[in-house]
Amino acid sequence: MAIPVETFFLSPDGEGTLQARIQQMIAEGILSGRFNKGEKLPSSRKLAAHLGVSRITVTLAYTELQANDYLTSRDRSGFFVSDNAPEPPDFPLRQARQDGIDWSRALGRRYTGGATPEKPQNWAAFPYPFIYGQTDPKLFDHANWRHCALRALGQKDFRALTSDYYDQDDPKLVEFILRHTLPRRGILAEPDEILVTMGAQNALWLTAQVLLTQRRTAVIEDPCFHALRDILMQSRCHLTAVPVDSDGLPPEALPDRADVIFTTPSHQSPTNATMPLERRNALLAKARDMDALIVEDDYEFEMSFLRAPSPALKSLDQDGRVIYVGSFSKSIFPGLRLGYMVGPRPFIREARALRTSVLRHPPGHMQRTAAYFLSLGHYDALIRRTGQVYARRRSHMVEALTQHGLDIEGTGIFGGSSIWMRAPEGVDTAELDASLRQQGVLIEPGKPFFHRPDPPSNYYRLAYSSIPSERIRDGIAILARQLRQAASPGAT
Amino acid sequence: MAIPVETFFLSPDGEGTLQARIQQMIAEGILSGRFNKGEKLPSSRKLAAHLGVSRITVTLAYTELQANDYLTSRDRSGFFVSDNAPEPPDFPLRQARQDGIDWSRALGRRYTGGATPEKPQNWAAFPYPFIYGQTDPKLFDHANWRHCALRALGQKDFRALTSDYYDQDDPKLVEFILRHTLPRRGILAEPDEILVTMGAQNALWLTAQVLLTQRRTAVIEDPCFHALRDILMQSRCHLTAVPVDSDGLPPEALPDRADVIFTTPSHQSPTNATMPLERRNALLAKARDMDALIVEDDYEFEMSFLRAPSPALKSLDQDGRVIYVGSFSKSIFPGLRLGYMVGPRPFIREARALRTSVLRHPPGHMQRTAAYFLSLGHYDALIRRTGQVYARRRSHMVEALTQHGLDIEGTGIFGGSSIWMRAPEGVDTAELDASLRQQGVLIEPGKPFFHRPDPPSNYYRLAYSSIPSERIRDGIAILARQLRQAASPGAT
Repeated sequence: MAIPVETFFLSPDGEGTLQARIQQMIAEGILSGRFNKGEKLPSSRKLAAHLGVSRITVTLAYTELQANDYLTSRDRSGFFVSDNAPEPPDFPLRQARQDGIDWSRALGRRYTGGATPEKPQNWAAFPYPFIYGQTDPKLFDHANWRHCALRALGQKDFRALTSDYYDQDDPKLVEFILRHTLPRRGILAEPDEILVTMGAQNALWLTAQVLLTQRRTAVIEDPCFHALRDILMQSRCHLTAVPVDSDGLPPEALPDRADVIFTTPSHQSPTNATMPLERRNALLAKARDMDALIVEDDYEFEMSFLRAPSPALKSLDQDGRVIYVGSFSKSIFPGLRLGYMVGPRPFIREARALRTSVLRHPPGHMQRTAAYFLSLGHYDALIRRTGQVYARRRSHMVEALTQHGLDIEGTGIFGGSSIWMRAPEGVDTAELDASLRQQGVLIEPGKPFFHRPDPPSNYYRLAYSSIPSERIRDGIAILARQLRQAASPGAT
Repeated sequence: MAIPVETFFLSPDGEGTLQARIQQMIAEGILSGRFNKGEKLPSSRKLAAHLGVSRITVTLAYTELQANDYLTSRDRSGFFVSDNAPEPPDFPLRQARQDGIDWSRALGRRYTGGATPEKPQNWAAFPYPFIYGQTDPKLFDHANWRHCALRALGQKDFRALTSDYYDQDDPKLVEFILRHTLPRRGILAEPDEILVTMGAQNALWLTAQVLLTQRRTAVIEDPCFHALRDILMQSRCHLTAVPVDSDGLPPEALPDRADVIFTTPSHQSPTNATMPLERRNALLAKARDMDALIVEDDYEFEMSFLRAPSPALKSLDQDGRVIYVGSFSKSIFPGLRLGYMVGPRPFIREARALRTSVLRHPPGHMQRTAAYFLSLGHYDALIRRTGQVYARRRSHMVEALTQHGLDIEGTGIFGGSSIWMRAPEGVDTAELDASLRQQGVLIEPGKPFFHRPDPPSNYYRLAYSSIPSERIRDGIAILARQLRQAASPGAT
């Protein structure tokens, strides 16, 4: 590969002769790893014209670098980075810029330090990855996704691919969601009551920015999705966490005053509890009394392989009080970054304006590809196939967990992709996770999900969305052994 | 197409017999446009099982709907929406939900009402679109983009396509930017000094959130990119606008105190002025005196077809004071939504944490496709080809504008894609735009770019990025005629 002439710049504050400065520039490019062995340098004519120096200066610099083994020349084809050139050092070569900025002052606001734990990027290398929310390559319909992407790359869809949509969404995707996705949740909506987002994460974030301020109060479930907590902590609103029970969020435990209630009624995250119909009605009535809005995160309703999901809370909403959040990032793949929200027009209008300011719109190509994948029926087939596999895995999980006498805290009556677990009192599942990793097992410690002064350390989540059925038994056996050891450190 | 059984829900608060409620549900589906003519209904067995009612109830409902011409039956293949079914009305049929929410109170913050004007989505239907920032289908290298996207959809890149990157970027894209893009601007950086964003818009937005608060002051150029103004207005920082001259932002006109200076030194937006080297050094010195940071939006440096661009302001930065913003959305296509920023680690770390909270990461597939398009050399070829065409268009523009005696305010010495224009005093270019649209000409009124008490109405921008060379002459002729008429409404 040739090194483009445009990447050469003489430092304006350089010292020494022109020739020396050119040599230094090239040597630094090699030593910093920017120019690789075997790469071709621009011709002396080209580089001279680009730098505005005489050609002989460049030729002299090249020849000198050749003598020093930085470059080699090949007959008539010019100069190349030599195979014997000095290796780039492991430490950063470039004189670190003197940092003239007091960053503790310059940063207006901090966003680091949230509760969301880092998951290992190399989770697929673990033999027993009980990890949540990642794509199983064996289940995903790669061939048809590719086919749809290809179609979305065609001439007919050129505008959908390339255009700046400003604040708009792909009309094909919106139509499909309105006609086929939302009715499954009992929701009827018009196009201006829906906004396409960069996954559910982005939908929850937009919601928080539009509805909350430092003077307002949000209610979250305890435990809850840690990324939601991070979003709300950053918004600096008042935060009240209400402990959930086996039926999800109890309306009677809500505070007297709150502005927005974030809830996961169909499938509590992370406990998997499903809120019964009476409680949903009671929650709506209570919210009406409080004059509060409700944000319903309906994640994973697609994974209802054991029985049909109950209609969404939004379908019972008579006041336009519920904002509904759905996602394709979980059911298709997380790297897709596509979700949506449904709510009353005045809300969607503000959320759309904010999204435009933050990022304009999710890439047209991703929206159009998803629209094809959905409308050609591949999505439904994927969900069915995934559901069958998850059902099998889940029964293996429950069987193995029961056999080893481990405490299941919540499984989810409809299905889902994970089980919420409780270890014996005194076991710290973060430590458990650390020892299990060395044995190839990945679990999710439960502490980051809690929002209370003294969060329990003995909960954990086991997902079956990424682990093959035949590995489950062995993985749970290792977990059980490690748990016994953790519970009574003296024995073995 | 068959209507999936899962989209049928009996409203929980419905009245009448079960059969009547089923009929009503289906009739509403047809009248609301959700069920289309010719679509197949689920079998009575399936629908009965799904709703938990007896099969005969469904059969009776279907038969009744058939008698009313909503449905037809075809021998042995079931029921379909009849071709004679009532048409969905034009007005919304569904009883609008009683809106029990006082949205003037419920909205915590407003984001609508910004200065960014709406551009017509159908700009390509205009014969003379002097419109900025849209993709010209004749110039874009669709075939090679498709080729790269296909490669990024392959088995080898499955992880890059599907994975949740959490807070990471595509390493291939980052490497290319570091090794090939930034050196062209005289910038050397390490991987943790760069963040991939959803276009320059997203980069500017993240920057504002990390650096500004209600107690801090930002400086913008006047005129400037209107979306930047919207971003800063929403951040509710103090805003000082400094009028630019023909060399861009004058450092001596800066206020005594400011925290962040937003500037476009290489190519002032929208006037196209290029800041000379001495002024760049003076700007950096002044910022050092003020202890202010500088955000350099280096949009469109790729479009330097007349002469090589001067190195970025960032390349002169000795303090780590400059945050550099670049974009591929302009040079590849706006629907791509990919840009990047380069800055000191403490800043990039916070911006990354915020991006993760807002949207996690730009879709892996878009990042990987761009990485291939860049590294296979298609990008450089596209830029070269585009530059040649723009150079031709630009000379046609200048020729036609000069011939008609129109006032050119700024052309950009390196190239670019637009010309900043001044109409005679008293001409309102918003009105001019409205009359020109009726004659097939699209221009951009200049008023939304200004940030001062009494913004001038007689500026406008003419872009040549989307109009074919052979249309330029006629388009400018129409513009000139209309301008003459606007300047002296009595005459013709």
